[in-house]
Amino acid sequence: MPDDRPESTTPQRYGYFGPEGTFTHQALLSIPGSDRGELIPYTTVAACLDAVRAGEVSSGLVPIENSVEGGVSATLDNLTYGEPLMITREVLLPVQFTLFARAGTALADVRRVITHPHAAAQCRDWLAANLPQATITTEGSTAAAAATVADPSSGFDAAVSSEIAGQLYGLTPLASEIADNEAAVTRFILLARPGPVGPATGVDKTSLVLFMRADRAGALLELLDQFASRGVNMCRIESRPTKTVFGNYCFAIDVEGHIDDDRLAEALMGLHRVSARVIFLGSFPRADATQQHVLPGTSNADYRAAREWLDSLRHHPH
Amino acid sequence: MPDDRPESTTPQRYGYFGPEGTFTHQALLSIPGSDRGELIPYTTVAACLDAVRAGEVSSGLVPIENSVEGGVSATLDNLTYGEPLMITREVLLPVQFTLFARAGTALADVRRVITHPHAAAQCRDWLAANLPQATITTEGSTAAAAATVADPSSGFDAAVSSEIAGQLYGLTPLASEIADNEAAVTRFILLARPGPVGPATGVDKTSLVLFMRADRAGALLELLDQFASRGVNMCRIESRPTKTVFGNYCFAIDVEGHIDDDRLAEALMGLHRVSARVIFLGSFPRADATQQHVLPGTSNADYRAAREWLDSLRHHPH
Amino acid sequence: MPDDRPESTTPQRYGYFGPEGTFTHQALLSIPGSDRGELIPYTTVAACLDAVRAGEVSSGLVPIENSVEGGVSATLDNLTYGEPLMITREVLLPVQFTLFARAGTALADVRRVITHPHAAAQCRDWLAANLPQATITTEGSTAAAAATVADPSSGFDAAVSSEIAGQLYGLTPLASEIADNEAAVTRFILLARPGPVGPATGVDKTSLVLFMRADRAGALLELLDQFASRGVNMCRIESRPTKTVFGNYCFAIDVEGHIDDDRLAEALMGLHRVSARVIFLGSFPRADATQQHVLPGTSNADYRAAREWLDSLRHHPH
Amino acid sequence: MPDDRPESTTPQRYGYFGPEGTFTHQALLSIPGSDRGELIPYTTVAACLDAVRAGEVSSGLVPIENSVEGGVSATLDNLTYGEPLMITREVLLPVQFTLFARAGTALADVRRVITHPHAAAQCRDWLAANLPQATITTEGSTAAAAATVADPSSGFDAAVSSEIAGQLYGLTPLASEIADNEAAVTRFILLARPGPVGPATGVDKTSLVLFMRADRAGALLELLDQFASRGVNMCRIESRPTKTVFGNYCFAIDVEGHIDDDRLAEALMGLHRVSARVIFLGSFPRADATQQHVLPGTSNADYRAAREWLDSLRHHPH
Repeated sequence: MPDDRPESTTPQRYGYFGPEGTFTHQALLSIPGSDRGELIPYTTVAACLDAVRAGEVSSGLVPIENSVEGGVSATLDNLTYGEPLMITREVLLPVQFTLFARAGTALADVRRVITHPHAAAQCRDWLAANLPQATITTEGSTAAAAATVADPSSGFDAAVSSEIAGQLYGLTPLASEIADNEAAVTRFILLARPGPVGPATGVDKTSLVLFMRADRAGALLELLDQFASRGVNMCRIESRPTKTVFGNYCFAIDVEGHIDDDRLAEALMGLHRVSARVIFLGSFPRADATQQHVLPGTSNADYRAAREWLDSLRHHPH
Repeated sequence: MPDDRPESTTPQRYGYFGPEGTFTHQALLSIPGSDRGELIPYTTVAACLDAVRAGEVSSGLVPIENSVEGGVSATLDNLTYGEPLMITREVLLPVQFTLFARAGTALADVRRVITHPHAAAQCRDWLAANLPQATITTEGSTAAAAATVADPSSGFDAAVSSEIAGQLYGLTPLASEIADNEAAVTRFILLARPGPVGPATGVDKTSLVLFMRADRAGALLELLDQFASRGVNMCRIESRPTKTVFGNYCFAIDVEGHIDDDRLAEALMGLHRVSARVIFLGSFPRADATQQHVLPGTSNADYRAAREWLDSLRHHPH
Repeated sequence: MPDDRPESTTPQRYGYFGPEGTFTHQALLSIPGSDRGELIPYTTVAACLDAVRAGEVSSGLVPIENSVEGGVSATLDNLTYGEPLMITREVLLPVQFTLFARAGTALADVRRVITHPHAAAQCRDWLAANLPQATITTEGSTAAAAATVADPSSGFDAAVSSEIAGQLYGLTPLASEIADNEAAVTRFILLARPGPVGPATGVDKTSLVLFMRADRAGALLELLDQFASRGVNMCRIESRPTKTVFGNYCFAIDVEGHIDDDRLAEALMGLHRVSARVIFLGSFPRADATQQHVLPGTSNADYRAAREWLDSLRHHPH
Repeated sequence: MPDDRPESTTPQRYGYFGPEGTFTHQALLSIPGSDRGELIPYTTVAACLDAVRAGEVSSGLVPIENSVEGGVSATLDNLTYGEPLMITREVLLPVQFTLFARAGTALADVRRVITHPHAAAQCRDWLAANLPQATITTEGSTAAAAATVADPSSGFDAAVSSEIAGQLYGLTPLASEIADNEAAVTRFILLARPGPVGPATGVDKTSLVLFMRADRAGALLELLDQFASRGVNMCRIESRPTKTVFGNYCFAIDVEGHIDDDRLAEALMGLHRVSARVIFLGSFPRADATQQHVLPGTSNADYRAAREWLDSLRHHPH
């Protein structure tokens, strides 16, 4: 997923969900200019985001849809209930695992493998086919697993981890792309303190959290209709039990478009009117190449024409 | 239905669907100041509206929901397909008929009655109960029937007509309020050439004609959702086969609210975007005393708050 | 609009909205077999329908969408508030007027014309262009106008009426198809006492009257959604102020399809559950040639497959 | 969350997402009768569910909404793309952590703590306040952490784990209920091979996976409307990127009600008609005490009355 937007000109401090060698770390390195920045790992999503809030780092990368490092719930809940932050970028990374060992270890020698439980689950078929004799032990992160294997006294022969973790700890790849499902992709978001929203690129996404006023048949439908009646397409929705008095559920929703697109702006105002609460998490360029859906009658030009028509009715010349 | 808005200060020329003595004439007299104006009858709805367009009269009153004088289709089609006109006022009139005869005629003497066919239908029970022996003949209008009875040589003893038609032709009422259904009300609209819309009063109505883009299940629903998703309540809807290439049906719709109400303005713009065509026929005070429905989140204040919230998101201060 | 369904085998008694020579009379003659039946005119829609209810006639034809003879409101209200009747057939008739005179009268001789007010309105341009010198007098029906002209002592030279009225009174056509809008069509319905619904033909229409439970933004939308969510297309909708305690408005609605079509049956049951009241006025073949709209997933086969799937889930075999 | 339904009479074999001592294990013990059954841990969700499919165990308990053990994505994807399974029960468990040490260790002595990363995150405030001097090391599961601490040579003083893990490894609780958010609850589901659905209890929930036919604004709305138009309330929704050709997204949805509730049965049939695919995952009693929402017109009695009305229209007696 190449990213050819202009690099920032001064080196920045980036936080990320660590430790070093996580997939988040690897995703961060795909952001242009990050190689010249200072990259600071945090042991939890919350610690990373608090560092952004405190100004320790200018932005922080954390997982938002990721079955390896978790993060979905932790990230969403932190953004929902913590001090406001804004998404400025998303990064997609194919879920890919590599089997690493110390130099000199051959695949046939591997008897004891260590990795994160989800990585073990996602490479289960490959491990069963290629290392049928090996025992699998789990560790708190794939990066920690790689660090463990780097220690010859650990008693482990190989680690399943990210590419970067193996490099970091000086390991040698024995096999790469060993995930059973080759198509899986994980998603990360870069968060900063609230500020001006970046300009619309034409292929943008906007993230929101909505709190319903009432829990009844059709209440969610009324919220979603605020999008549909303006031609705004939804990318993702996830209901979350709420922690507060606002209601029983809130909804994390990603939609196509930018806050500066008229159809989305009107939908946002509609949600503000009919929801208990709307959290705007940001408008940012989509990391995938998906074409925008613009239904007839919902372009900025259509909105402008409609406003001009309304004005002509209201202020009729004599 | 008293109307206590300030009278216009200079005498005006009003057209109406005549002849003299119709219910439209009677309705026109309930408009404050009309007694000082010049009232000009036209034999058809189309002639009356063309007189407005030509500037012969400053405004014209015609029936829009009326089972006695017709007018619904003729009026709607004329407004839909003719040169633009604007509704500036509506007038409601209870459907009430009076039995009129020449002075000296007693109820017991009445053998031959003349009236409009719909008036005959609407007084059928009363006539059967009170004039079982009478024959009923129909005429083109109740006013013409009254004129006929005024001529002693006509051979008719009594006419069923409006109050005003009987007075006009010097007849004597034998019985009043003889309609079988006492609750029926007819509705008239006052039309003028397009100009600035009058100010919102808080209890207004807006009339539209909508042309659909497609004739399929759900297409009308999408149009109506432009109202519902903004909390705009509908008062009346009537589908009409179209005469043009726009589609198979158009819809005459009355909704609560004024073009200066934010929720209605946004709905109008939405309709402009998704309809083949929107004809705005005017915003005007409701003639009945019905309370406006304003759902939570749809007041002008709610709209203003939503705009301010959106602005704050777009132009975030540092 | 040819009608090639099999004729009924025994002569029947048909009522119609008269007098003889009305467009309703003419429409009735287009029903196969009506020429061998007994045709009985009634002076009002109500009288005609009451004759059906009383068994005086086996069925009655009345106008339902017709700007010449009225009938929409009178017919709808009678069906809504009177004893139940069922529509068994609809008849379409192009709105066509003919100018009739007594034998020997030439067009150039015509000075005084008599007709129904709506007929005058609908032929206004033709009359202005072809009989600029003539005065137009109105009468209660076009048939009565033709009868008047048939009397040489009437003082009238010509009548604008239906084809059949001119024939009936022995008049000679001076000009035919003189309506200004050549495309207009009027619609009539044949009513019988409630009984078994005729079989589905594949191109049917169903008529209903719905009473809402609540008068608020979105209440009508919820009713219409009962159709849309099952893929039932709507042909006609008209709101009507109610006369009863059920609510402020009811809706006369025609939809595509037959009560034996699964999608419509389910929609009817849905309406029965969520409306204050549903009046089923009948399922009958469409008089026009319009193709039925059947959206994906809404055919009888789709409904049957869905039921079978549900049954398989509920009664899972081991 | 007491469960007072009758216990099954014969001991059963239950699989669960292990190892021993996980929260899933603890949740399984809350199912009546499980104490007399055989409980078999599996190292992954997939292994547990495959054991159910293979008949090794009669049912298997896995997490479905759980920020500690993950499981949401793994469980959902397995149920979506694997051989069919059916949910027969859900279990809720408050998220509660206990700090365990070997006998003789006092809180003041704790210097090195080991736990799962999510447990560390969820107890972060408590650990910072009560063990400010301790270092936190992460392990693949809280149960493994407890096992580690049980070994005096491990170098760790305490583990944060479930109550049951500490008991299992003979540890002593130093502090209980140490999660920072006391209200969090995790949810587990018990899966069996497809079979007859259990009877409705009046407070049930049904789980589905829906695949859309099209990815456009409003497509999801049309699916959800199948619920809303029948008065079915939604409990949970989560969009998931699909792995197959069906479309770009599928939706995991929980709704109130049982497949034997008429409103839900009709909604299911509607979804079957308009979706690319519907996976029925089961109807089962709700584990919480929430009152069912039954809107006017949507009870089984309302549905029965509607069917009877339809039948009376279709088969009208003479």
